[in-house]
Amino acid sequence: MPTYKAPLRDMKFIMEELLGAPAQLAQMPFYAQNDTADADLMEQVLAEAARFVETELVPLNAVGDKEGCVRHDDGEVTTPTGFKAAYDKYRAAGWTALDADPTYGGQGMPHLISNALVEMMNSANVAWSMYPGLSHGAYSALHAVGSDELKNLYLPKIVSGEWTGTMCLTEPHAGTDLGIIRTKATDNGDGTYAVSGTKIFISAGEHDLAENIVHLVLARLEGSPQGTKGISLFLVPKYVPDAQGRPGERNGVVCGSLEHKMGIHGNATAVLNFDGAKGWLVGEVNKGMNHMFIMMNAARLGTGLQGLGLGEVAYQNALAYAKDRTQMRHEPRVNPGESADPIIVHPDVRRMLLTGKAYSEAGRALAMWLALSLDTEHHHPDEAARKEAGDLVALLTPIAKAFMTDNGFDVAVQSQQVFGGHGYIAEWGMEQFVRDARIGQIYEGTNGIQALDLLGRKVLMDGGKKLQKLAGTLQEFVEENEGDESIGDYVNQLGKAAQQLGSLTMVIGQKAMGEGGADEVNAAAVDYLRYFGHVVYGYLWARMAKIAQEKIDAGQDKDGFYLSKVQTARFYFAKLFPETKALATTIKAGGETLAVDDRAVFGWEGRLATA
Amino acid sequence: MPTYKAPLRDMKFIMEELLGAPAQLAQMPFYAQNDTADADLMEQVLAEAARFVETELVPLNAVGDKEGCVRHDDGEVTTPTGFKAAYDKYRAAGWTALDADPTYGGQGMPHLISNALVEMMNSANVAWSMYPGLSHGAYSALHAVGSDELKNLYLPKIVSGEWTGTMCLTEPHAGTDLGIIRTKATDNGDGTYAVSGTKIFISAGEHDLAENIVHLVLARLEGSPQGTKGISLFLVPKYVPDAQGRPGERNGVVCGSLEHKMGIHGNATAVLNFDGAKGWLVGEVNKGMNHMFIMMNAARLGTGLQGLGLGEVAYQNALAYAKDRTQMRHEPRVNPGESADPIIVHPDVRRMLLTGKAYSEAGRALAMWLALSLDTEHHHPDEAARKEAGDLVALLTPIAKAFMTDNGFDVAVQSQQVFGGHGYIAEWGMEQFVRDARIGQIYEGTNGIQALDLLGRKVLMDGGKKLQKLAGTLQEFVEENEGDESIGDYVNQLGKAAQQLGSLTMVIGQKAMGEGGADEVNAAAVDYLRYFGHVVYGYLWARMAKIAQEKIDAGQDKDGFYLSKVQTARFYFAKLFPETKALATTIKAGGETLAVDDRAVFGWEGRLATA
Repeated sequence: MPTYKAPLRDMKFIMEELLGAPAQLAQMPFYAQNDTADADLMEQVLAEAARFVETELVPLNAVGDKEGCVRHDDGEVTTPTGFKAAYDKYRAAGWTALDADPTYGGQGMPHLISNALVEMMNSANVAWSMYPGLSHGAYSALHAVGSDELKNLYLPKIVSGEWTGTMCLTEPHAGTDLGIIRTKATDNGDGTYAVSGTKIFISAGEHDLAENIVHLVLARLEGSPQGTKGISLFLVPKYVPDAQGRPGERNGVVCGSLEHKMGIHGNATAVLNFDGAKGWLVGEVNKGMNHMFIMMNAARLGTGLQGLGLGEVAYQNALAYAKDRTQMRHEPRVNPGESADPIIVHPDVRRMLLTGKAYSEAGRALAMWLALSLDTEHHHPDEAARKEAGDLVALLTPIAKAFMTDNGFDVAVQSQQVFGGHGYIAEWGMEQFVRDARIGQIYEGTNGIQALDLLGRKVLMDGGKKLQKLAGTLQEFVEENEGDESIGDYVNQLGKAAQQLGSLTMVIGQKAMGEGGADEVNAAAVDYLRYFGHVVYGYLWARMAKIAQEKIDAGQDKDGFYLSKVQTARFYFAKLFPETKALATTIKAGGETLAVDDRAVFGWEGRLATA
Repeated sequence: MPTYKAPLRDMKFIMEELLGAPAQLAQMPFYAQNDTADADLMEQVLAEAARFVETELVPLNAVGDKEGCVRHDDGEVTTPTGFKAAYDKYRAAGWTALDADPTYGGQGMPHLISNALVEMMNSANVAWSMYPGLSHGAYSALHAVGSDELKNLYLPKIVSGEWTGTMCLTEPHAGTDLGIIRTKATDNGDGTYAVSGTKIFISAGEHDLAENIVHLVLARLEGSPQGTKGISLFLVPKYVPDAQGRPGERNGVVCGSLEHKMGIHGNATAVLNFDGAKGWLVGEVNKGMNHMFIMMNAARLGTGLQGLGLGEVAYQNALAYAKDRTQMRHEPRVNPGESADPIIVHPDVRRMLLTGKAYSEAGRALAMWLALSLDTEHHHPDEAARKEAGDLVALLTPIAKAFMTDNGFDVAVQSQQVFGGHGYIAEWGMEQFVRDARIGQIYEGTNGIQALDLLGRKVLMDGGKKLQKLAGTLQEFVEENEGDESIGDYVNQLGKAAQQLGSLTMVIGQKAMGEGGADEVNAAAVDYLRYFGHVVYGYLWARMAKIAQEKIDAGQDKDGFYLSKVQTARFYFAKLFPETKALATTIKAGGETLAVDDRAVFGWEGRLATA
């Protein structure tokens, strides 16, 4: 059975030494007023969070996978043994309210802290964590654009965890392409709407953890235009509450079935049938897509945290196994009197372990940087600072989502590999991490869609302004440190890659304006995102190595934590960062090599028939 | 539900146009005598094989995954619904005998043909295919080193499929490290041995397909030395046969439990408890490891075929889905009157599909090249030709095993990605391909072990002789074709990479002789194997493209098959081969970056405590 120990030491390092978070948060009146950004308080909260996930959630992870959720004939769903009891403890301890608005009963802690909590929860039990996770998404959307009436009625219940929420987007024929959804809403003329249609892949869509479920549903109001410009957002509660917030009549939304999935078995992935269900408009008519996008950055960062959390826990278990399992002999011998040495001595095993460590620690730094930027975007007193933080979040969120889930999956696979044949056996738990990690690359916008968002929307569509701003930050760092004795070599690699990122962007942009058009963006996007991801991780690793080396030089590395940072940075630049060399070549190859003959290569007559 | 169509056209191309197999096999008296290498006959046999796997095995793939195997209290095991009926048809049609020795009832067909059958079977149903697959392994070992008495008694039953076989190697504490196994054998003094111990991870270890199961078991004869030099191979039948081959008394080997695994649920992975079971020595005392290695190349190529087969079928289904699924609009429109276009028009989807196609077709070429080389090694009249083929097989087998299973897994994952959310849902079958493909990277020697075998044993230990021989072949090809109008560019890339492979080998070899020692080999091996794999695939793609271009130029490409080859080669060199650029850098990084401080980085005191 896998174990997990929350990486509190590393979180503290990133928050305090890398990001200087306490000082930054202290500048924001919201946190200063609420007194929620004190470094000691934050540390205490995270220690408490660690205790909760380690004792309550870790033991339920295998149970949830094995039992899954059960749908009954009446459409009600039972979650795995222990899930409800853990949820009750979770909300009793106030975790559902952690970063929520005090106006509605929240504790007003920074995103930075809830981000760390979510990483831990994902390491411990990603399927369980999706119930409060989806709730949090619904909370954010409602909080951002809901009417005061809706907010006053629903938010206190969601913040307290008495009720949970969902996001209902996908339909059988419409996943990436939400513009073609068919779920429709009719105006009842009394301030309510009748919502009808079928939604699929609704995570936490039906369950027994809470007394009510609040669905946020994308639908087309009768008479609205086709496409994404005719989509509105509706709130559809499972039970329609009275004015005092007591759940009343059962609404016309029923779980038709649960999906059988590769992983995250403990989370109910529901088909929801809306049949004239009573709904309320959230925000403005036909602005549903915009409203969803408000909370998209946080949700996508949250998915990235699944990759991070699963990579971290898989790495931790591979490390423990590598110390324990003895196999083959190494010179010089570790166990001279015994038949074999621990496999951690073999360089190739260390390569797999260090890959997990390097990706997890860089991912954590990126996630915390973005979480702090979300805090800045929302609460900084200076408008320019808010705008700058918002631009950074917009630019790096697709990388956090896609790069972190891709790396998380790869780390889970490599950590499973450390176990040899035992990694394939269910009881060791490693194969569950792989299965659970796989979904992060697919949902919340596939990683291919993230790449298009990055290259097409975030970089090219604003003429490279956001990219240039970040490039300036990198350039400054490079110039300051290229002669540095300890990190100069990394900084040189980083500087060259950052420069090349700029020139690659130009090349793609020019091709896209030429004959290739949008196809050139589509052809390059995935490789481009990975290249960009390495530039960001390279920047973070170089900075972390610099801080760590300074501590070592000052004789302040009693437990070897800083030496570990320095050596992991060295590994990252030697073994992982060089992927950029291949990516630069494949990006430059352009769309031409993908424009193969449809009939000959794919046996497809489609384009020929209509071209 | 996934579908599958055997790639007969591509197999024919590789066999006849790339390898010139019929002419080569005709030189070998064994096939000439048996008249089993006629091109038309081989084509007919493969067409019949395709019909069998498409109609009998494909429909059982999801069933096997869902039901799994069931162990009863008496240790007997029931396979999934339909498995036994399909096995009965399989052996009634003579497939178990396909490439077996006619002396024992085999049909004496070339390895080349059984290799193609096995690829198809793995695409259709890898869990089912492992039952005859393991049998074939046992057949090969027994055929190679068994006494006439054992061969006469057991081989006809195994060849006919009445009995199946297993390979019993792994123990709970001994996987990679077979030198430390504890299963022991005691001489009964009557020509038999009493075998006792526990073997785990025994594929096809217990089942209801056949009336008897013949276990080949590695064990240490009492009084033999420690380590691999004290291990012998024993035959332990589930039922001890009488002289007429009728199964008699139940032997002391019982299935103690079945493993719950990530995939290949339809195959029984057994814990086998041997308790004084009656066994017979196979081959010589203390030569068990050598005897196993005789059949290792074929078994490892067989594992590579699992990666190939699963990649191929995953690709086929992703291609079908990409033509069918409509999502988003592409300019110019494919379906101008409808809401969306098939996703196959999007370049990033094509990238994923072409990755599957390029790896599958190159993998098929490599596998068939090696299968034909196995035929040559065993049956060529000229000793030098046999030796040369054997050297090639020895050198390239670890690549076939590791590179093909790594690529097969990646292709399965990318093909799943084409399905978006549906790829994560069990009913579409894509997630099963991913789970089933994962084991190929782990068993039959992990891919890390394959890499050590390649770099340490096959390349460095013979002073690079085998590598130089292959490098000569490549060099010749490069010199002949570097000015070629159609493939010159590929050939130049290949030539540079082949040269760099040589210099990288030198660099590692020198480091290994210096301070780094064996750790330098271990540190570089995995990246080295991947680099080498690309050089081999690059060579095969360049050759295939050349043949195809000649056909096009001669106006002989009616159905676009050759154009497909040419364009897939272009994709391969533009998008996949450039991975070599990253690998060259990571290989050169050496072992230094993995020699991190144990205590600081891994929290491990082991080495410090004893050093």
